[in-house]
Amino acid sequence: MTGSVQKKLSGIFTPNMVPLDEADRINEAELRRYTEWLIGCGISGLYPNGSTGEFTRFSFAERKEIVRIIAEQTAGRVQILAGAAEANVSTTLEACEYYGSLGVDAVAIVAPFYYKLSTESVYAYFDEIARRTPVDITLYNIPQFANPITVECIKRLSEHPRIIGIKDSSRDLPFFLNMMNEIAPLRPDFVFLLGCEEMLVPALVMGADGGTIATSGIVPEVIMRMYHLTIRAELAEAVQIQFKVLQLIKNLIFGTDFPEGCRAGLEIRGFKMGRGRQPMSASQRCDRQSLRTHLQCLLSEHGVVEEPPEGCPVRQPAALAIDRAEIDRIVRNVMDQLRRQGAV
Amino acid sequence: MTGSVQKKLSGIFTPNMVPLDEADRINEAELRRYTEWLIGCGISGLYPNGSTGEFTRFSFAERKEIVRIIAEQTAGRVQILAGAAEANVSTTLEACEYYGSLGVDAVAIVAPFYYKLSTESVYAYFDEIARRTPVDITLYNIPQFANPITVECIKRLSEHPRIIGIKDSSRDLPFFLNMMNEIAPLRPDFVFLLGCEEMLVPALVMGADGGTIATSGIVPEVIMRMYHLTIRAELAEAVQIQFKVLQLIKNLIFGTDFPEGCRAGLEIRGFKMGRGRQPMSASQRCDRQSLRTHLQCLLSEHGVVEEPPEGCPVRQPAALAIDRAEIDRIVRNVMDQLRRQGAV
Amino acid sequence: MTGSVQKKLSGIFTPNMVPLDEADRINEAELRRYTEWLIGCGISGLYPNGSTGEFTRFSFAERKEIVRIIAEQTAGRVQILAGAAEANVSTTLEACEYYGSLGVDAVAIVAPFYYKLSTESVYAYFDEIARRTPVDITLYNIPQFANPITVECIKRLSEHPRIIGIKDSSRDLPFFLNMMNEIAPLRPDFVFLLGCEEMLVPALVMGADGGTIATSGIVPEVIMRMYHLTIRAELAEAVQIQFKVLQLIKNLIFGTDFPEGCRAGLEIRGFKMGRGRQPMSASQRCDRQSLRTHLQCLLSEHGVVEEPPEGCPVRQPAALAIDRAEIDRIVRNVMDQLRRQGAV
Amino acid sequence: MTGSVQKKLSGIFTPNMVPLDEADRINEAELRRYTEWLIGCGISGLYPNGSTGEFTRFSFAERKEIVRIIAEQTAGRVQILAGAAEANVSTTLEACEYYGSLGVDAVAIVAPFYYKLSTESVYAYFDEIARRTPVDITLYNIPQFANPITVECIKRLSEHPRIIGIKDSSRDLPFFLNMMNEIAPLRPDFVFLLGCEEMLVPALVMGADGGTIATSGIVPEVIMRMYHLTIRAELAEAVQIQFKVLQLIKNLIFGTDFPEGCRAGLEIRGFKMGRGRQPMSASQRCDRQSLRTHLQCLLSEHGVVEEPPEGCPVRQPAALAIDRAEIDRIVRNVMDQLRRQGAV
Repeated sequence: MTGSVQKKLSGIFTPNMVPLDEADRINEAELRRYTEWLIGCGISGLYPNGSTGEFTRFSFAERKEIVRIIAEQTAGRVQILAGAAEANVSTTLEACEYYGSLGVDAVAIVAPFYYKLSTESVYAYFDEIARRTPVDITLYNIPQFANPITVECIKRLSEHPRIIGIKDSSRDLPFFLNMMNEIAPLRPDFVFLLGCEEMLVPALVMGADGGTIATSGIVPEVIMRMYHLTIRAELAEAVQIQFKVLQLIKNLIFGTDFPEGCRAGLEIRGFKMGRGRQPMSASQRCDRQSLRTHLQCLLSEHGVVEEPPEGCPVRQPAALAIDRAEIDRIVRNVMDQLRRQGAV
Repeated sequence: MTGSVQKKLSGIFTPNMVPLDEADRINEAELRRYTEWLIGCGISGLYPNGSTGEFTRFSFAERKEIVRIIAEQTAGRVQILAGAAEANVSTTLEACEYYGSLGVDAVAIVAPFYYKLSTESVYAYFDEIARRTPVDITLYNIPQFANPITVECIKRLSEHPRIIGIKDSSRDLPFFLNMMNEIAPLRPDFVFLLGCEEMLVPALVMGADGGTIATSGIVPEVIMRMYHLTIRAELAEAVQIQFKVLQLIKNLIFGTDFPEGCRAGLEIRGFKMGRGRQPMSASQRCDRQSLRTHLQCLLSEHGVVEEPPEGCPVRQPAALAIDRAEIDRIVRNVMDQLRRQGAV
Repeated sequence: MTGSVQKKLSGIFTPNMVPLDEADRINEAELRRYTEWLIGCGISGLYPNGSTGEFTRFSFAERKEIVRIIAEQTAGRVQILAGAAEANVSTTLEACEYYGSLGVDAVAIVAPFYYKLSTESVYAYFDEIARRTPVDITLYNIPQFANPITVECIKRLSEHPRIIGIKDSSRDLPFFLNMMNEIAPLRPDFVFLLGCEEMLVPALVMGADGGTIATSGIVPEVIMRMYHLTIRAELAEAVQIQFKVLQLIKNLIFGTDFPEGCRAGLEIRGFKMGRGRQPMSASQRCDRQSLRTHLQCLLSEHGVVEEPPEGCPVRQPAALAIDRAEIDRIVRNVMDQLRRQGAV
Repeated sequence: MTGSVQKKLSGIFTPNMVPLDEADRINEAELRRYTEWLIGCGISGLYPNGSTGEFTRFSFAERKEIVRIIAEQTAGRVQILAGAAEANVSTTLEACEYYGSLGVDAVAIVAPFYYKLSTESVYAYFDEIARRTPVDITLYNIPQFANPITVECIKRLSEHPRIIGIKDSSRDLPFFLNMMNEIAPLRPDFVFLLGCEEMLVPALVMGADGGTIATSGIVPEVIMRMYHLTIRAELAEAVQIQFKVLQLIKNLIFGTDFPEGCRAGLEIRGFKMGRGRQPMSASQRCDRQSLRTHLQCLLSEHGVVEEPPEGCPVRQPAALAIDRAEIDRIVRNVMDQLRRQGAV
């Protein structure tokens, strides 16, 4: 659909997490080792300061350090799309200038969040940044967390040469296709990146240029294989992998508060991530251990790590009906105990 | 605020549930007995075919029968506001005509539901009905279940003499006050009924004309006392009752799928309600028994029924911290058992 | 993914609208003529009493008549999936029995709507129907209008042999794929129909069995061509058509209150639809005329009808920036006039 | 309801906006002048770094400067509740320490925003801060913008002596009352502040300790009068004022993107606020001028400023029906013009 125009960005960008040391500081050595591993696994680019990278939990100084480390380590071998959203337009432009000076290919800027803004205000925000930025920009639409960027707004913003594309994490394929359909004829070079691994194959089939894919940071081998199969039109196997990783994705991303599952996944792959900056309660810490075992079992099914020493449960779909009755029985017992104590 | 104009409807209207017999038919004798009891308890009016009355789960023929029985039994002793929403405008008008012929004071018509409509379509729907109805209408706003009716739309509709008021169940006090503020100057006789017992006292203080109150069908003594204290400006005691019933309300209305808790409450008050038309699973049936015990304990605190034979748990707020640790321990044990069986 | 198992339903089912006569009754002759036309255009099946068919705006007696007419006219030449949701379980079962006696292939039952139900209640509702129905059932998930049916709930319900599939209109591809991934291994014969024409091609690529597609009732030639190209894996052209019809779909379905645009589209195709049962205000009636012209222009681009006599506007994307300034100027003028009159 | 326990905070706290100079820096002189004016108008306290104060659009260094200026200028004459939410727990604690050293009475901490967190994570976040803060904390619930804090979560957190209250901006009175009902018996000293001026009178009647009220920064005379009348139980006049200011509030807060209307209001009151940090498009700048005229007319009705030189429109409710037809006519003309140009 978008024809044969050369796009500035394409392929799979990894929104990398940031390892922390014992003192809660950026673990530079581990971040370099992780970057190196990702490049070795064949990813198309890095995307520091994304949502997976927990950009809101760092200071501006730290966000600059993260991009600097990655730019140095990458040294031009893969592309860099750097998250540059800051508290206001001036600071965001300061970020754009600095990341531009480091040689990143483009910056991604999420729509303003916290306050609910009208579409006109979302437009005005990007419009002012686009007039003054020294570096190319991709819009970042993630309506679950930030103000939505409508198709009409994207269309108006696409008049700015500095706005070269969009990364859409809305998980809404009709929205994504409508957007492509409206924008591509006006701007044939506009880049459409999908931020939703659960439908990467179908979006690529429809003409998406690539994606920013959280799980590409944990199983880059699997995601890159799925990507290359799809663009080579070897769909039978690509579809199989897409389904195979759906369960993995569900656990990594939705099994716990995002992106805690990604951190657990990275530790299984051998990186020292440290403790996240969002505190966990006692019961959450207990859950995380079982999440780790569960993930290791899933990753071992994909052949990228060994089974955990304690083994993996055998999945028994046929036994499901029986299990449910058993579960009901146990839960009812517990509820009865709690009721007797007046606790519920 | 709305001054001294005489309103056509005022006070507390009970959205009565409908007892069913063994064969799933309307239990006319019990419905008459229930109506008689409500009138004896001093309610201002009845509101058959409301949401509490599960109007969507009956046929048109049954809805007509329900209003007929109540109109006969009431015989003019209290007011009747009859729910008249049907599948389309013609059938709704047929309902208006029939209920008018039975002598009801007004009908309540909920905004169209299922399809999402524009405000203009909501307006057009009520506009056409208002032009042709032989009986007075109150709008019924319940945006949780049906298309919302905006303040602007109500303002336009208030030009129809046949539209005499609104029953608002949005649970949104700023909306309710804005609506009063906009409509009352244009239509001093417009009736404002609140459909949310959790804030009946504050709404009455601000000038609401009354309410359609689900719990007035179960503890009419308590609700009517709260109402009369408030309109006599004896706020200290009214506020105390409002807080005292908040816990009751929470369990009756939100402890289970609405309005199942109301049915359980009515059985405790001595009415044979039969099985509801929405099926319940095995685990729900088990929950309902414990709900009934729980409700009976709450009602006994209000002095309207005896404690259940098995007694009520003593509430121990001081022991809460300890209970939680205990709960955590038990839940963790269960989860461990389930995990070992591969069930989660 | 779902392998080579024979599915009971597959292909494109048309959720047909119902023509009305001057007296607001079902126009049987026109409904038969419309059915005949659809079959001639190659659709796989009919789906009377769907959301496009405005089932909630008819009486039970009318819904039965609609299915009877279609069953007679179809006479086994294409499949029939009949919407059978009624006010409660008993009446729904009565519908199942009647439609079964007419020889429909299956019935579709939407989750309960109006009241917000827990997942357990949604389960209990379908569970009871599935135990007693004499005809096969497809679940119907449309969370925009009715209570959602979760993947876990579908999994439990798939244990019933009478529940043979699902029609999902959630517009949520990750949900659709997760559902396929979880259910297909347990029930290889389970039918997955998509109710969202905006992503029919990608869903078919991922293994969907077909769809219930509103626009297949207006441009069946276009939709069936897109469908057949996709299942023959001629994706380049299928993708082109998918994009080409996105604009059409947007106007037909979302340009006005659903499904009013579909009615306008059908009149352009030559069917006398009559006035819909949801009233329209004066300004809506005026809009509808312009919608009709607009649709005719779009349909003429697809080559299925002639241009309207008044001609079609030439689309000038390059002139867009100028137009917007002009629009701003006009709107500002109007707002100024209104303000001077104190109207806003 | 909460009896006669002495509360640490009570009355009306003004969430002050921050004047900016030509160079987009904090205008310290004007901020001091504004603070002085507010104190002179009788407000109970200041609440710097609230949502009205646009805390997310400043840097941490600026937020510290704002509290320092206000603490110095206030010099103990009124209470200070300082917003202390930062990017992570460590930085938030740094803010707590600094604000504590300045002598503020308490800090307010909003629940984490951007990422959607489970209730358990919201609990863990506040739990860790409460264990380590040197200054008292009020929770800040604003589910429109940030993760919600449930009643159950507040109950658990109320076990921390450092958590002394909550400021609730949910605009949900049933929630507010349920919260009071659950927490007050466990912590009689717990402070309940309402962040919703549209229902301040009813909340005070029910026992709220006060509020953080955006409009108290623009018409402190009006809000303080309403507050004092209410707590003296002179409800007739209090209710009248509550209704009188509803229109004002609607325009100040909801007429444009929050809190832009508050900035316009402050300029009418004579403070040089500078340009906000959220950019405005050309059409928004034009709207803002008309907003200013509109606000000045409303404020002049409250007797706090003069009418604007250009006069105010006379409000003519009786003429409304005619106006609407006129509006319809004008809008239709515009739409026709636009259609002829192919713009819509």
